[in-house]
Parts: sequence; C-alpha cells; structure tokens
Amino acid sequence: MSALPAEFSLIARHFRPLAGPGALDLADDAAVFMPPAGRALVVSADAMVAGVHFLPDDPADLVARKLLRTNLSDMAAMGAVPFGYLMTVSAPRGLDDAWFAAFAAGLAADQATFGVGLLGGDTTSTPGPISLSLTILGSIVPGEAIRRVGARPGDGVWVSGTIGDGALGLLAATGQLDDPTGFLADRYRVPRPRLGLARHGVVSACLDVSDGLVQDLGHLVRAAGLGAEIMADLVPASTAARLAGPDYLERRLTGGDDYELLMAVPSAHEAAFVGHAAGLGVAVTRIGTFRQGRPEVVVRDGSGAPMAFAAPGWSHFF
Amino acid sequence: MSALPAEFSLIARHFRPLAGPGALDLADDAAVFMPPAGRALVVSADAMVAGVHFLPDDPADLVARKLLRTNLSDMAAMGAVPFGYLMTVSAPRGLDDAWFAAFAAGLAADQATFGVGLLGGDTTSTPGPISLSLTILGSIVPGEAIRRVGARPGDGVWVSGTIGDGALGLLAATGQLDDPTGFLADRYRVPRPRLGLARHGVVSACLDVSDGLVQDLGHLVRAAGLGAEIMADLVPASTAARLAGPDYLERRLTGGDDYELLMAVPSAHEAAFVGHAAGLGVAVTRIGTFRQGRPEVVVRDGSGAPMAFAAPGWSHFF
Repeated sequence: MSALPAEFSLIARHFRPLAGPGALDLADDAAVFMPPAGRALVVSADAMVAGVHFLPDDPADLVARKLLRTNLSDMAAMGAVPFGYLMTVSAPRGLDDAWFAAFAAGLAADQATFGVGLLGGDTTSTPGPISLSLTILGSIVPGEAIRRVGARPGDGVWVSGTIGDGALGLLAATGQLDDPTGFLADRYRVPRPRLGLARHGVVSACLDVSDGLVQDLGHLVRAAGLGAEIMADLVPASTAARLAGPDYLERRLTGGDDYELLMAVPSAHEAAFVGHAAGLGVAVTRIGTFRQGRPEVVVRDGSGAPMAFAAPGWSHFF
Repeated sequence: MSALPAEFSLIARHFRPLAGPGALDLADDAAVFMPPAGRALVVSADAMVAGVHFLPDDPADLVARKLLRTNLSDMAAMGAVPFGYLMTVSAPRGLDDAWFAAFAAGLAADQATFGVGLLGGDTTSTPGPISLSLTILGSIVPGEAIRRVGARPGDGVWVSGTIGDGALGLLAATGQLDDPTGFLADRYRVPRPRLGLARHGVVSACLDVSDGLVQDLGHLVRAAGLGAEIMADLVPASTAARLAGPDYLERRLTGGDDYELLMAVPSAHEAAFVGHAAGLGVAVTRIGTFRQGRPEVVVRDGSGAPMAFAAPGWSHFF
C-alpha cells in the first residue's frame, strides 16, 4: 500500500492529541461514550468563515479559540456545563502546516481552560475561504436549562462584562479605530464565555449577545411577550470603548461579537445574583427593566428620550 | 424595533419545521433533551463543500440528502441508531429562497425515512462556495459499538451493495461517462446508509467506504494488525458499472463516495450475517479474507496476480 493521504497525517499530528474520552483517538467512524448520568444533554452548533466571522489574517490559535469560545458562550447562556465538541475544518489547499499547528495549540489551551475534549470531526479542502464549524455538547440538571423565554414584568435587564468591545474591536483590528493597548481587538478575537454565571432559580431568561445588544434583547422580549426599556448610559463600557467617544455609542449597542450574557433577573434574586457573579469575578450590571406592553425594546438616552438606530443589530447572513 | 434580519426569517420558514424533540423550535441558544436511557451516545461530524463533495449545480434537495446520509452512514458503520442532528449552512449572499426551500424539503423527506430530527445549527454567509457541516447523534447499547479494530485472522472481508457506483457516478454527472439510465449519477448524489446491517456479535469490525475500497480496507488491516487479500472479480458491481467496462475497474476499487459498509465477519457468523442482511433487503458479498501478516491490502486479479494502483483511494483534502 502506498502512503496515506495528507489528510490522515494532518489529523494524526495536530488533532489526535486533542481527542477526549470516547473519541476513540479520532480513528473510528464516530465517538462513543456514556452521557453524564441523570442529566439532560445540551447541544449547539456554530459556523465561522474567514472574512465574515474572523479576519483572514487573524492568528490561527485565536481563530480556534474564538470558534470554541463562541460555542461555549451558548452553553453559558443555557446554564449548561460543556464536556466535548466536534469540529469541521475546510481549508484552502496549501494552507501550511504551521497554521494547523497554531490552530491546534489554541484549541489545546482552551480545552485545558474549559475542561472539554475533541470528540470528532472532519477535515476537507475548499476552493473558498477557511470555513469552520463546531458542535458543542454539554449537560445540565433536567429542567434547569435557562431559556430565552421566562422574563417577567419587573425583572431587571442585566448584562455581564462590558458591551461593544467586540464591535469596536473589529474596527480596531481593521485599522478604522485607534486601539493603543490592543484591548478592543483582543475582545473581538477572544470571547470570554461566562460559564457558570446564569443559574436556574436566579436568572429567569438568558441568551448570549452575539448579534448586538438591542437586537438580542428583542429576542427576550418577543419570547416573553413583554417590553423592555434600557438606559444607554447604564450599558457598561470598557475604558477603551469609552475612550473611543460618544460617536460610537450606537455601534456599541448594536454591533456584534460581544459574547456576554444578557439576562432577566427578578428583583427578589438580585442580591443572590450579584453575590454569585462576584464570586466568579464577573462584573454584572443592571441596564433596564422588563415591562408589560408591546414586545419591543426602548433605549433611552441621558435625557430620557428614546433613541433610534439605523439597524438594531448585526447579521452574519445578509 | 425594526424587522429582524433575513437570517431569522429564513430559519423560521425553512428550518423550524424540521425541528425535532428537544430543539426548542430552534429559538434558543441550544437544544436540551434527555439522552436515550441506558445507552451510549455515538456522535460524528462531516463537512461538504460545493465543488469538492458535490457539484455546484446539484439539486439542493439531493445535496441535503447526501449531507444527512453520509453522516447516517457513519452511524451505520458503528451499529448505532441515529436520533438527531445539528447542521451549519454557509451560503453565498443571494442564493435564492428556492434553493433553501428545496434543501429543507430534501431534509424533511430523509428525516421521515430515517427517523431523525434537526436539533440546531447555524446559517451564515460566505464569499466562497456553499459550505455545509452536519453533526449526527445516535445511541447504542453500551459495549456494542462496532469498531474499525476487531478483525481476526480468517474473518471474511464483506461489503454491502455494489462498489464503484459513486466514483463512476461522479464521472457520469460531469459528462465523462455514459449513464443512459442515470443510475450512476444517482448513486453519487444519494448514498444509501446501511443502518441496522452491522450487528454486534456478528460483525467483528466495520467502517463505511467513503474514500475508496482499497484505502478504507487499509484502515481495517492497520487497526487489526493483519493483512487482507481480496479478489477484484468478487467485488460486486452494478449492471451500470459493469457496462462501463473493465477499463474502470481501478476507479471502482479506489474511487470515493460508495457509502457502503466494509465489514469483517467470522466464518462462524456468516450464515447469521447473510440471513440478517437478506431480512433487511441488503445484498452482501464476501470479497476476500483477513490473514496473519503485514498490515497491507493485496488485491488479486482474475489470474491471481496482485494488482498495483496509482493511488489506493481518494482524499477530499489534498
């Protein structure tokens, strides 16, 4: 028999060391494992395409980490505990081995950070840009998943971290915004999934902010059949985002790539919620309130006047 | 707030009707469901790119069915029972709604045929060709997964169906081979996953033939640390493939896209195996034998002489 195709050697060299329990060394047609006993499964998948979700010259290790972390952010939004993932990589012929080595190193680092293992996947060529997909698997106590539906009138609208860094980071990474410390570009390239923050019985509804705060809050209000009002001045901004100035307020509120959690928290649970977040070292901020009324989002400026936006959010599709 | 982006309406129109139990109508950040009680999970993922794994002008319903069926074939190879899948679709801007409607119709038809439901996924744009990924989830009795490792000296080498139709079908679909009935092109476009054929305790090793019979048999011999000898004349050919003539023998044995099962079956289980296959209406053929010796595949022609091939198989990577 002649040598195996390059695909197999590439998988053996770069991806096999990432194989988790049940992955059968990535040498079989599928992974086989017992699911966590007595728990519900939580599964989600995202795709990322060079030039759409990341910049074609972004470092491969950071591309890998963004791919994994955007999916971990979905687990965080449900209140789930991730344990493994499958991944497909479609790469242009001739993409060099160093790219794959760096890509795998990024995954290895985040596997250690987040306690997940690679369970399977596929590597193919493409005549187009690098196209990636990742399916994340996690688990949760049955009945304790946190849904987009569930906000009640009077619940506070809360966010984790700071909002708008990702959108400004894309501008920074493409030379359209000054970013002397590199903070903003880093926030665009490396999301911080807020695993463990959203807890059943404390948070009544949750999603992760990936397509713009205002648009994503729209998902929560439609699911609940409620309105929501938020104060632009209360939306937390990083120092770097604040330095960009007030001209970027709309971009911060409607741009994508935050990967922070947007949550409904009943007043009765605020103290428990804030204490829990502090224990995790994650900043949380109340930015508004869910109210009876038409399912729409009102954003008020410092004078209390409702703000109008060109578009409420971002789509990676059209 | 203003209308949602086209992405959400596209998902609601075409993909939400495909949502299976636990998918939460594709309206949350992840699916949540109880895994089948007392069973191991079996998971696998594949990518397909237009121009690499299917032809850019292949009908969208058949592209969808190939995407799902190639993954179902992995479940068949493990002896697993599939129950659901996640899918990512990266499509060029402007791909028309009719394409998505046909794509979803193909999935709907095969969901009914195979008893699986859509659990989640992602839809994005791409500046490149249509890029698809699918992660399939299935289950199996713990300890009963059929692996690539497991063949013993003396086990027969068996295949399901006919071999080489997919490779000749690609030639037919691209106008390089006469295909008056369209049989070969159909075999390229619509794999037949052999679910239920490979059973624990009967079949000792198995994989699905996707990259060429000879190359894929190489995986079984390396896993077992055995050699294997097969007779080219015994490798089952469809009438259409036979009509293509002996010049296409090498292509049939080394081309990709068969999605038939390649199995090791101990002599003691042959009768049970053949009876079980007959009950499913699937033809199975013994084409050779696993033997002690170096882990290599020998293919003998009608005179008993070993055949040499330019390449043992096909890679979708390089």
